[in-house]
Amino acid sequence: MDDQLSWVSQAEFTRALAGVDDRHDRARLFATLSRINTLYAVARAGSGHLGSSFSAADVVSWLLLNHLRRPFDSDGDVYFSSKGHDAPGLYASLIGLGALPEEQLHRLRRLDGLPGHPDVGTPHMAANTGSLGMGISKAKGMIVADRLRGERRRYVVLTGDGELQEGQIWESLAGAVHRAMGELTVVVDHNKIQSDTWVRDVNDLGDLEARFAAFGWAVFRCDGHDPAVLEETLRRRAEVPDVPAVIIADTVKGGGCPTLAATSMGDDEWQYPYHSGAPTQEVYRSALAELTGQAHAMLARYGLESLEFRLVSRQPASAGNGARLVPAYGEALVALAEADDRVVAFDADLVMDTGLIPFWRRFPDRFVECGIAEQDMVSQAGGVASRGLLPFVHSFSCFLHARPNEQIYNNATERRPVVYVGALAGLLPAAPGHSHQAVRDVAAVAAVPGLVVLEPANPAEVRAAVDFCATSPESTYLRLVSAICPPEVIALGAEPLRVGRGRVVRVGGRVAAIGSGPVVLAELLAAADELRSSGIELTVVELPWHNRIDAAWLRELVDDLDGLLVVENHYTHGGQADLIARQLAELDLASLPRFRGVGLTSIPRCGAEAEVLDAHGLDARHLAEAVRDLGVAQPTRTTVAAQTISAAL
Amino acid sequence: MDDQLSWVSQAEFTRALAGVDDRHDRARLFATLSRINTLYAVARAGSGHLGSSFSAADVVSWLLLNHLRRPFDSDGDVYFSSKGHDAPGLYASLIGLGALPEEQLHRLRRLDGLPGHPDVGTPHMAANTGSLGMGISKAKGMIVADRLRGERRRYVVLTGDGELQEGQIWESLAGAVHRAMGELTVVVDHNKIQSDTWVRDVNDLGDLEARFAAFGWAVFRCDGHDPAVLEETLRRRAEVPDVPAVIIADTVKGGGCPTLAATSMGDDEWQYPYHSGAPTQEVYRSALAELTGQAHAMLARYGLESLEFRLVSRQPASAGNGARLVPAYGEALVALAEADDRVVAFDADLVMDTGLIPFWRRFPDRFVECGIAEQDMVSQAGGVASRGLLPFVHSFSCFLHARPNEQIYNNATERRPVVYVGALAGLLPAAPGHSHQAVRDVAAVAAVPGLVVLEPANPAEVRAAVDFCATSPESTYLRLVSAICPPEVIALGAEPLRVGRGRVVRVGGRVAAIGSGPVVLAELLAAADELRSSGIELTVVELPWHNRIDAAWLRELVDDLDGLLVVENHYTHGGQADLIARQLAELDLASLPRFRGVGLTSIPRCGAEAEVLDAHGLDARHLAEAVRDLGVAQPTRTTVAAQTISAAL
Repeated sequence: MDDQLSWVSQAEFTRALAGVDDRHDRARLFATLSRINTLYAVARAGSGHLGSSFSAADVVSWLLLNHLRRPFDSDGDVYFSSKGHDAPGLYASLIGLGALPEEQLHRLRRLDGLPGHPDVGTPHMAANTGSLGMGISKAKGMIVADRLRGERRRYVVLTGDGELQEGQIWESLAGAVHRAMGELTVVVDHNKIQSDTWVRDVNDLGDLEARFAAFGWAVFRCDGHDPAVLEETLRRRAEVPDVPAVIIADTVKGGGCPTLAATSMGDDEWQYPYHSGAPTQEVYRSALAELTGQAHAMLARYGLESLEFRLVSRQPASAGNGARLVPAYGEALVALAEADDRVVAFDADLVMDTGLIPFWRRFPDRFVECGIAEQDMVSQAGGVASRGLLPFVHSFSCFLHARPNEQIYNNATERRPVVYVGALAGLLPAAPGHSHQAVRDVAAVAAVPGLVVLEPANPAEVRAAVDFCATSPESTYLRLVSAICPPEVIALGAEPLRVGRGRVVRVGGRVAAIGSGPVVLAELLAAADELRSSGIELTVVELPWHNRIDAAWLRELVDDLDGLLVVENHYTHGGQADLIARQLAELDLASLPRFRGVGLTSIPRCGAEAEVLDAHGLDARHLAEAVRDLGVAQPTRTTVAAQTISAAL
Repeated sequence: MDDQLSWVSQAEFTRALAGVDDRHDRARLFATLSRINTLYAVARAGSGHLGSSFSAADVVSWLLLNHLRRPFDSDGDVYFSSKGHDAPGLYASLIGLGALPEEQLHRLRRLDGLPGHPDVGTPHMAANTGSLGMGISKAKGMIVADRLRGERRRYVVLTGDGELQEGQIWESLAGAVHRAMGELTVVVDHNKIQSDTWVRDVNDLGDLEARFAAFGWAVFRCDGHDPAVLEETLRRRAEVPDVPAVIIADTVKGGGCPTLAATSMGDDEWQYPYHSGAPTQEVYRSALAELTGQAHAMLARYGLESLEFRLVSRQPASAGNGARLVPAYGEALVALAEADDRVVAFDADLVMDTGLIPFWRRFPDRFVECGIAEQDMVSQAGGVASRGLLPFVHSFSCFLHARPNEQIYNNATERRPVVYVGALAGLLPAAPGHSHQAVRDVAAVAAVPGLVVLEPANPAEVRAAVDFCATSPESTYLRLVSAICPPEVIALGAEPLRVGRGRVVRVGGRVAAIGSGPVVLAELLAAADELRSSGIELTVVELPWHNRIDAAWLRELVDDLDGLLVVENHYTHGGQADLIARQLAELDLASLPRFRGVGLTSIPRCGAEAEVLDAHGLDARHLAEAVRDLGVAQPTRTTVAAQTISAAL
């Protein structure tokens, strides 16, 4: 059937592999079966990194099947991926080997399933990665510990090639030489394409072999798709057991089947389409047919039966009703730049995900692509600002607030406006996992002097926010939620932004909830609907400011309130609840409204949006409950309703 | 006289230089005079980076006198130092050229004087540095701006060699090649010694020329103390105008006079003594005599009169009464490690300033020196923790909370205890300047899940805190003030640490002030004395926890209070005032005590401790005023006192 997805059971892996006695062919077949299941898992999940999983599949297969000594035992060799977004492929391989439960294949990027990026909560994941550039350092630490404990094992760490733009990679190399860490082998999955496009166009790596060699590492280079060549390269690497070594494995993004392979890209295509999105059903079928053909040819050569697939119906992706803020941001930036030639945009390999493609097209000279080099990007922006221009600096908020945290502060001490734009802010989407869920960004930058943190809720507010950022005498940090903005939040439109002041977006009674951004406001509006049915009229207030509060506005607001709930798409520390409570405490009121803040209290879960909001108590149902728990809700309609409330309390 | 310091006036610079027509000799003489004034300024200030200023002096002199085109005009060439701690030397040179007011020479590291590290508030400082590794990126940004504005100027950026351990350096190199930034020349002041000791022993740079070349830069190497060689090297550099170039200038730390030169170190000495401390008067006299001898020889060769020095009496350094926390920490760590073999210590080139020398001596195998590579260090610690050991990670808090901010969060998501120890926390000492004043550290890490931030006030509490960190199931961030702990705070001793609970350290009336650490507590105790004299009995409460608060403890405390002041050695955002206000708001009290938080509201000033505390309103006098401003102070003694208070209000 048209919408069916096919996967290979662990038993079928075992059956097929048992019949192939040549180790190179076995690795090839294993990689093909792993790719089939990777394709399945990503198609089923609706997102995931196919391109990287496929480019790394032959390396991973060879390592797991032939190179690593007892990789699933606590005293065995350790393999992990530093880039981490080849996780679907690794999961598929581990499931094929019986090292992860088979049923998890169906739960990629779902609650209690397999996270979008590796987490040590999953068996055999040695490190949390997805925050790029940390893997070599982590392995070094593990080796330090091994040596202290008198243990000896080998470490193989996979990195991306775009990842090599991160400073931490180069920071980590010298110490491994200084300490003669021959236990460590780094394999670069050199597929030549990073998130946006070709590495050479983003920020060319130059002579990569010379770079590693200059840092004192042993350097090898080989075809990353040929098991025999990988075996030989690893054999040569073993001849220099006392120095850390890098194997630059030349691979093809999406390699292993023509449909997904970057080699199939046309000369006029700059963007590889399968970096992180799910394949259409047509692409899925085409890729599956190619992989199946390979597998069956191999099986036939060994006189084995064809694969017996398990079939699952593909669930149609729910597109969601509404609009996204990121494209609106991109358009607003172009409009601004048309009028203000001070505007310069900086990007860190996320041109699509931060809405910058229109700007880049329109103002190529005013667009600076930095690659995955956030510290360099932010300090460059400081340099641009020092010459009187106005830099807009872009990345995912999870990276932008943290990796260049000291650089943001340093710029602030120069007192020149810089605009930081962090997309993918907040808990949702929750499929990529906690490395990509920016729920600590406000706390980490809110105390930077002269930096205003604000979060628009809908496209109209995005436009107002961009204008605010462009004219603010202070620096600004624009928190952009990438999850969909639903119609009811779009309908709120925008009012002129006044620093520290919010607006009532739903008039209710003497209990109010404050929040910012499309996710929180949508849930609060839904909670208000739910509460109305039980006789409570919730006042909903949007406060787009995260580290500025207008005392007079707040005093006027709480004058009318008996209860106030602050809801945050962020850890419930260092954000709006603290900000509002602090100002409340300094208002010298005779009495405060009953006050509570809710937000994240634990590391964000990975999963579908609804299940993750529920798991963290931030969906409408939980928020309605939190309002009721304030214990001050007054009936506003009927006595019957009041009794209902009493019962609920 | 014995205690006299000598300096050279700007007029004397002009007189001497005018008589030397050979440009190389003139540069030599200028460097010598600059060194004399650098020595003077540092001796007078009581601290400052002599070694780096001296090693860079010949490079800086040649650049300013002969290479840079109109460096003091807005459209001229730009020179700045990325390492920034050669600032005293640069200031002396600028003063010699009349580009900075002469009187500022006497105000190094003083309020409204010349900051310990460069700040753009000082004329001709192009960038705020001292946070290492940012300079190349900043220059790149300036070049981006120049090109957009149709301007063309050259940039020369000085870096340290220890600084090259920072990842951002290598992150920044490729983009300069990608954009063919021939405007940019980096000079490495390769004096071979970083903060602690020899670069080769900390984290060897290996083949430095090969490293830069592998990143695509043009590489030159030369004697950094010979003007003729520098001229020739810069001429060769100009032959490749379309690529960024690095000149590795081989220099001697403290070079220019034997007394301070690292070449005078004995074979058994590992620590260069003039990295950042002031010279003793004996060393001062010896160095001055050598420099004067050089200058006079040169002047005599040109038939010029000897230098006419200006003389100033050296103020004796006020040692301060009390004890420091850092050595107590170092001893406590050794004691812990004797009993717990899980303890591993990581350092980032601050072995002395974080108290680690005893640990390093006692447990060399459990000591990991990372060099100036904080991201690598923190991720290594995560790797060590993953193997069941307990890493203690050390740096200055200004760097530790910010540079590896994402790495700290990533470790936290692995849920394994890591102990972070940030020395030099808070506003004091204020002489190094804002790059080194950690007053945003709490806010930047306090929302990290599973990370407890605490700050001991005296040596006894340091010992208790180390034990707490070692046994905490959560990770910990130990905020260590490096300013002196006065006797009255030492006398407070320690009580058992209970998470989120403070203790009353001075019993008073119904107005209390809460704070943590030796600086705040000392000022609060002094404020309490001052207030007592005007009839107010201030209750002083120590709360060593920055992101944990015990609701029951706070409820009990405020039950007895009419007014509460929270005082922070930190920006007044994201710290204890917010923490306490938030908890107060959620206590459902019928009424709150009058509440105020005070802390920094602007970028920390550079200066002597007392003047900086005063400037930020955090000295005892201002704190007493803040208590009075609460407006709830009740007379506790006499009616006369009450009238006095009324008048004061």
